[in-house]
Amino acid sequence: MPRRRLILLTGMAGSGKTTLSGIIRELDLRVITMGDVIRELAKQKGLEPTRENMGHLAEEIRKGGPDAVARRCVEMLKKGPEGLTVVDGIRSLAEVNTFKDEFDVVLIALWASPLSRYKRLTRRGRSDDPKTWEEFKDRERRELGFGIGDAIASSDYMIKNDDGIDTLKPAFEEIMGLIRNG
Amino acid sequence: MPRRRLILLTGMAGSGKTTLSGIIRELDLRVITMGDVIRELAKQKGLEPTRENMGHLAEEIRKGGPDAVARRCVEMLKKGPEGLTVVDGIRSLAEVNTFKDEFDVVLIALWASPLSRYKRLTRRGRSDDPKTWEEFKDRERRELGFGIGDAIASSDYMIKNDDGIDTLKPAFEEIMGLIRNG
Repeated sequence: MPRRRLILLTGMAGSGKTTLSGIIRELDLRVITMGDVIRELAKQKGLEPTRENMGHLAEEIRKGGPDAVARRCVEMLKKGPEGLTVVDGIRSLAEVNTFKDEFDVVLIALWASPLSRYKRLTRRGRSDDPKTWEEFKDRERRELGFGIGDAIASSDYMIKNDDGIDTLKPAFEEIMGLIRNG
Repeated sequence: MPRRRLILLTGMAGSGKTTLSGIIRELDLRVITMGDVIRELAKQKGLEPTRENMGHLAEEIRKGGPDAVARRCVEMLKKGPEGLTVVDGIRSLAEVNTFKDEFDVVLIALWASPLSRYKRLTRRGRSDDPKTWEEFKDRERRELGFGIGDAIASSDYMIKNDDGIDTLKPAFEEIMGLIRNG
């Protein structure tokens, strides 16, 4: 029996993952994010989904190892509907390998220059988004500390997202064509 | 006085760095590789430039820290001719930062999929190139161990090199246009 196929998305903060996820959902593909795993667990524990609760819970889960969130995500996926699913928010090769143990995995990386990512994040202005170049560089270091650079460098497909939203959809559709025929 | 500008190239083995360096030289830009630094030092020490001697010498230099080769390269650059120079073979952000201390740095990453890189390396067949997928993955892990993934993920420009040599030159020229006007 062929293994179920999974598309994993990785990319630094501000590279456009949320925008791409929206585009993918419009194409009628199921997208779950690594954050959904934590939200689901919070629900099970009867916790309010506040940013603080989510942060503590994520920390607690990660004490189980660098692939602890991925392992929980695998369990969620096995219980969920069949069919092609996209998992957004991959942060390391340890996570990629956990999914590879169970699924036929394709890893797509989104890349944007530091300047583009900085502009997007300061414009977005979520409460935990950087306000200065120094805060941005700190956040970048934290992300790289999880090992996201290794995942981006060894991705199967790469989408450059420096040019704005118009090029994102055709770039993703081209890759989907290659994956479906490959 | 504006600082001298330096273009740094990074990319995994098989991503096309040597091919791109050739194209850059044809554009009458000076290219030096991090390997040149080691060859230069071997000459100073009166060592034959065999693969074995180079390997031992590189090991010896790197005992001086993750940016030891970069620091020697900076010294070489300061003694060399003025004007725009390209440095190929960057393997970590530690190296990038060493160049940033002295120069106005732009970092360009070359990306190609693992499958493309594997095909190129097995076709190239240098004595230390991988012959099997396992050897390729081992080499990839070693490269990522130097921190090359972080350099690729946080590069200022990205060239996708999955499509063959025809797209490399225009991609590089486009970036040069942006750099010169930026």
